[in-house]
Amino acid sequence: MLAVAVLAAGKGTRMKSALPKVLQPLGGKSLVERVLNATDALQADRRIAIVGYCSDQVRAALTHYPNLEFAEQAEQLGTGHAIQQLIAPLSDFRGELVVLTGDSPLMRTSTIQALIDNHRQHQASATVLTALLDNPTGYGRVFCDRDMKIERIIEHRDCNAEQLLNQRVSTGVYCFDWQELAQALPKLTTNNAQKEYYLTEVFDYLESVYASDLQDPDESLGINDRLQLAHAYEVLQKRAREKWMRAGVTMLLPETITIDDDVELAPNVIIEPHSHVRGHSQVGEGSVIGPSTMLVNSTIGTNCEVQFSVVEDSRIGDNCRIGPFARIRGESIVGEKCRIGNFVELKNAKVGDRTNAAHLSYLGDATLGNQVNIGAGTITANYDGFQKHQTTIGDRSKTGSNSVLVAPVTIGANVNIAAGSAITEDIADNALAIARAKQIVKPDYYDQEGRKKQ
Amino acid sequence: MLAVAVLAAGKGTRMKSALPKVLQPLGGKSLVERVLNATDALQADRRIAIVGYCSDQVRAALTHYPNLEFAEQAEQLGTGHAIQQLIAPLSDFRGELVVLTGDSPLMRTSTIQALIDNHRQHQASATVLTALLDNPTGYGRVFCDRDMKIERIIEHRDCNAEQLLNQRVSTGVYCFDWQELAQALPKLTTNNAQKEYYLTEVFDYLESVYASDLQDPDESLGINDRLQLAHAYEVLQKRAREKWMRAGVTMLLPETITIDDDVELAPNVIIEPHSHVRGHSQVGEGSVIGPSTMLVNSTIGTNCEVQFSVVEDSRIGDNCRIGPFARIRGESIVGEKCRIGNFVELKNAKVGDRTNAAHLSYLGDATLGNQVNIGAGTITANYDGFQKHQTTIGDRSKTGSNSVLVAPVTIGANVNIAAGSAITEDIADNALAIARAKQIVKPDYYDQEGRKKQ
Amino acid sequence: MLAVAVLAAGKGTRMKSALPKVLQPLGGKSLVERVLNATDALQADRRIAIVGYCSDQVRAALTHYPNLEFAEQAEQLGTGHAIQQLIAPLSDFRGELVVLTGDSPLMRTSTIQALIDNHRQHQASATVLTALLDNPTGYGRVFCDRDMKIERIIEHRDCNAEQLLNQRVSTGVYCFDWQELAQALPKLTTNNAQKEYYLTEVFDYLESVYASDLQDPDESLGINDRLQLAHAYEVLQKRAREKWMRAGVTMLLPETITIDDDVELAPNVIIEPHSHVRGHSQVGEGSVIGPSTMLVNSTIGTNCEVQFSVVEDSRIGDNCRIGPFARIRGESIVGEKCRIGNFVELKNAKVGDRTNAAHLSYLGDATLGNQVNIGAGTITANYDGFQKHQTTIGDRSKTGSNSVLVAPVTIGANVNIAAGSAITEDIADNALAIARAKQIVKPDYYDQEGRKKQ
Repeated sequence: MLAVAVLAAGKGTRMKSALPKVLQPLGGKSLVERVLNATDALQADRRIAIVGYCSDQVRAALTHYPNLEFAEQAEQLGTGHAIQQLIAPLSDFRGELVVLTGDSPLMRTSTIQALIDNHRQHQASATVLTALLDNPTGYGRVFCDRDMKIERIIEHRDCNAEQLLNQRVSTGVYCFDWQELAQALPKLTTNNAQKEYYLTEVFDYLESVYASDLQDPDESLGINDRLQLAHAYEVLQKRAREKWMRAGVTMLLPETITIDDDVELAPNVIIEPHSHVRGHSQVGEGSVIGPSTMLVNSTIGTNCEVQFSVVEDSRIGDNCRIGPFARIRGESIVGEKCRIGNFVELKNAKVGDRTNAAHLSYLGDATLGNQVNIGAGTITANYDGFQKHQTTIGDRSKTGSNSVLVAPVTIGANVNIAAGSAITEDIADNALAIARAKQIVKPDYYDQEGRKKQ
Repeated sequence: MLAVAVLAAGKGTRMKSALPKVLQPLGGKSLVERVLNATDALQADRRIAIVGYCSDQVRAALTHYPNLEFAEQAEQLGTGHAIQQLIAPLSDFRGELVVLTGDSPLMRTSTIQALIDNHRQHQASATVLTALLDNPTGYGRVFCDRDMKIERIIEHRDCNAEQLLNQRVSTGVYCFDWQELAQALPKLTTNNAQKEYYLTEVFDYLESVYASDLQDPDESLGINDRLQLAHAYEVLQKRAREKWMRAGVTMLLPETITIDDDVELAPNVIIEPHSHVRGHSQVGEGSVIGPSTMLVNSTIGTNCEVQFSVVEDSRIGDNCRIGPFARIRGESIVGEKCRIGNFVELKNAKVGDRTNAAHLSYLGDATLGNQVNIGAGTITANYDGFQKHQTTIGDRSKTGSNSVLVAPVTIGANVNIAAGSAITEDIADNALAIARAKQIVKPDYYDQEGRKKQ
Repeated sequence: MLAVAVLAAGKGTRMKSALPKVLQPLGGKSLVERVLNATDALQADRRIAIVGYCSDQVRAALTHYPNLEFAEQAEQLGTGHAIQQLIAPLSDFRGELVVLTGDSPLMRTSTIQALIDNHRQHQASATVLTALLDNPTGYGRVFCDRDMKIERIIEHRDCNAEQLLNQRVSTGVYCFDWQELAQALPKLTTNNAQKEYYLTEVFDYLESVYASDLQDPDESLGINDRLQLAHAYEVLQKRAREKWMRAGVTMLLPETITIDDDVELAPNVIIEPHSHVRGHSQVGEGSVIGPSTMLVNSTIGTNCEVQFSVVEDSRIGDNCRIGPFARIRGESIVGEKCRIGNFVELKNAKVGDRTNAAHLSYLGDATLGNQVNIGAGTITANYDGFQKHQTTIGDRSKTGSNSVLVAPVTIGANVNIAAGSAITEDIADNALAIARAKQIVKPDYYDQEGRKKQ
């Protein structure tokens, strides 16, 4: 049997935030969600978040984890005190308890699993996840024998010069034999500088305590301030960039690119600098994203170009050219071989194949057929001040420059709308529509300075 | 009594610029301004800039420093020669002289104050600000006794292997007892490789010379070329980013973000990558700035979003959504809960609360009330070719898509302007205004290829 | 006599690409083009690319190198096997053969020349280009005597602890005496782990083999995956940035800026962050490029500002202000002191001096005179659905806001076009043109909620 406890009761003063620390967002998920997600694959029998500071808010933020239990630590009297809150809910439990900190979002499942495996192999009372740090200054040092059995843990300030050379430190993550721990927990004291119950004091009462080194010290990073939050984001991004480059994605200036966890990129995608692929986005083979582009929850087909543009909640077909300076949103769907050009906005637009809207247009709540040509400055007037209406444009129709289509309106196929027209009534197939005034010229009206002649 | 001298006479050949080196801009201020600003809090009795190359230009650039004196170094014959120019102006002065280089813009006030304090404590003839460099290659090494009294200064090329291990170097910043220095200065010679008067030669004639280490070697960085200028900007930015992150600001990819000195950011501001907050800008709590956004001398309220946009010399109220691809400038003022969307420009516009201009609009020299809805493609024609005119739009009015308002024009409240209208005359409250031609349709005009039928 | 062989037969599996590895693009050129370009100045008598994987594609991509020969390596049986393919084509050749790898795009001409010079000076049988790596883990170590004559090359796994301290490794680049090599090549065996013909086995059969260290280990970087490709791009960019900063260009956050090989930047250009200067672009003295700007094959005059914009295949005169959010393309030419503002697109437009198009305009296939003022929202309707037509506008003319000019159309000088007009016919000099409907107002039409009164 396996239980997992996540310490999520702290405030996180150095964050300078009203938000509890474990709810701080990091790459689209909160810190504690990242810790919990890393435990999903462990398939623990019990999973308990120990909450305290703003516990209602933390509980509410985690309702989407089925079977997640909560233990309330009303006062925050130290890590030992936090784990003491498990004595009641785990009274009948037999097996291992893994203790994680809710502010360590970089921990990998494989690392936790290796900790458990090591623990079981040693039949240990407890196993401490340890890291070998290049610069362990300030951390307590963990001293082991050859079998990784811990002999002593010495605080930094109590180390002699030789002991300071030891780079092995505790990460604050542990695996315990719960029954042994449950017997030790009541013995904890507050005989220390902070007058708190330290969980580490249990090692004085447990028989066999082992260390298990993690491979990548970054995983143990705990987030206490925004500098560490920025660093954690950098680590996550570095992992994502390297993963996708190894899978065949070209990145220019990868350190300027951000890619969320749930993104899928095909081989031979090229991501230009200063671009972001976020949420549940996908990009097809051979497409070029960026520079300075953001995709959010969107799907881009194969062999597309998307430059200096923002695409949200939308889908772009194969062989499209988007941007620069286009914005596509609101569940728009664009067909194949389309051109959505500069200063064009699509909002809840369905666009057929080989259709172009190349300049200065707004197409909202619109359905366009195939091979439609939207003239520069065309606008669908979809909002009457009270509600939104639909515009429909048939195959091969053309809208003139600076024309406005007042929805609801239906334009047939093969229609041509003259430049500058305001269209308010439906147009049948094959028609020409004009709604503009005749050109009047007043000759010889201005002098050479451009002033009206007297 | 305290005097401060700043060496600002050099040309800076490696800058490859007609601009004197000390006037090169760095984060909105010149190098020498940054040095002078670092001395403001010292409240020196005298402050003298030693100028030479393009001295008129340098003097003109520093007129805003009250009580700043100038000493002219007509020829540039070395640092010793520069300080010799102070003998006349400081003939009656008693006390300490601090010598700073005008190309060291990263020096902190606290460092200069610590140098002065050390100097006074030792009752020294002179105190050298020293740095411990990881890589001191090329620098002269400073050798001290235990009390930091300098025993020798040896040029890099004259050091033996053991001496080369000494990482302590001079930064070119000094504190002198002026009377002792004034007696030593006339003794300087040009018996050296450059045939110049070196200020460092005075140490041969002074009795007690001490060293004072600075904490952060970056502070001693002198700017001689554009690589060092870029590095200095990076250091300034790193300082600013860390300051604001510690104050509770979240930054994503902080190394891509620039923040000027006079910016104020509230806690829980989020700055997305590739963004810039410049000049005297302020951002309120909970607002998200970026990606790819630039704020210049602007104030953003609380809980705003500003994405892929440029805001200059303007003020945005709380709970607004700006962008992507918006530009706001010219002392525009936007109220609360407004939406300024893609491809919208505001120039000298006053916008009330809950007013939207979501797409493809230009609002220049315009005053909008509350709950106004600006249709896509609306333009205020504010310029008649000679001067600018005002447009006024009352509360709850709506402009149709692709409408143009020819200023000067006043639109009342509750007005509705039809799409595609050119409005040239004032409109009273509650009116509907239309200025467009009737739609004419020529049916069955095109064949299936879209060609006009014969 | 000098021959150069470039190994270009490999697939590059770790690239995860259908494209042969040597054709992967890096800063606008393929890897193998960069290697070949580095050999241009050597003026070799023979230059041979050894091709194999997708050899037709590789040959086709290199047709622009005159006198480049190809040798086919039908099967890829190792580097020795590759060079064996030269025995026939070089049967009459006397002199040195330089062997380069087609995936090492950072190699400099001067490095190859130094290798040849060293080789000739030693009258060597072969000379190995070697690098001293900070971390040589995994590489075979090259052991030399004092004269740089190679005594042994030992694979990493066969080195003892002391040998592992040797940081000198082979780069895979060589200079051979061809006649000696040609005699040794037939002796190669496949007695090794990979069962391939290793070129390095020839050293067993050659008398005097020397090493020649390169100065900058980055040059030896071979590209095997996208991580190395990104790193190589970073190295190229770092070289370019440093070159231009030394030449007097200011860069802010240089690590976010990309500059292609064929770019020319004048002194005192300032490049703001997140900007790109690509292709054959030039920027004149005192111009400020960026932030977030891309220039491609374009020329910018002196003292211009180009912000948050994209300029392609175009030319901008002196003292222009472009952007933010402008796009200029299609061989547009802009005169002096022009203002091309936000959300303005120029496509194949010729623009005179002191002409402004400040907001929301599309000028395609247009010729504008001097001092023209393009009103916000002006559009040239250049496309009739079948072909493009020209618009011409004379000096000092003004187009009203939201006007549309239906091409082909010619507007004279000193013309004024009223706001909201659709212009379909030519206009003579000094005329006023209007094409819009009269404004009709229906008073007292709406109630206070903005609903039509019953």
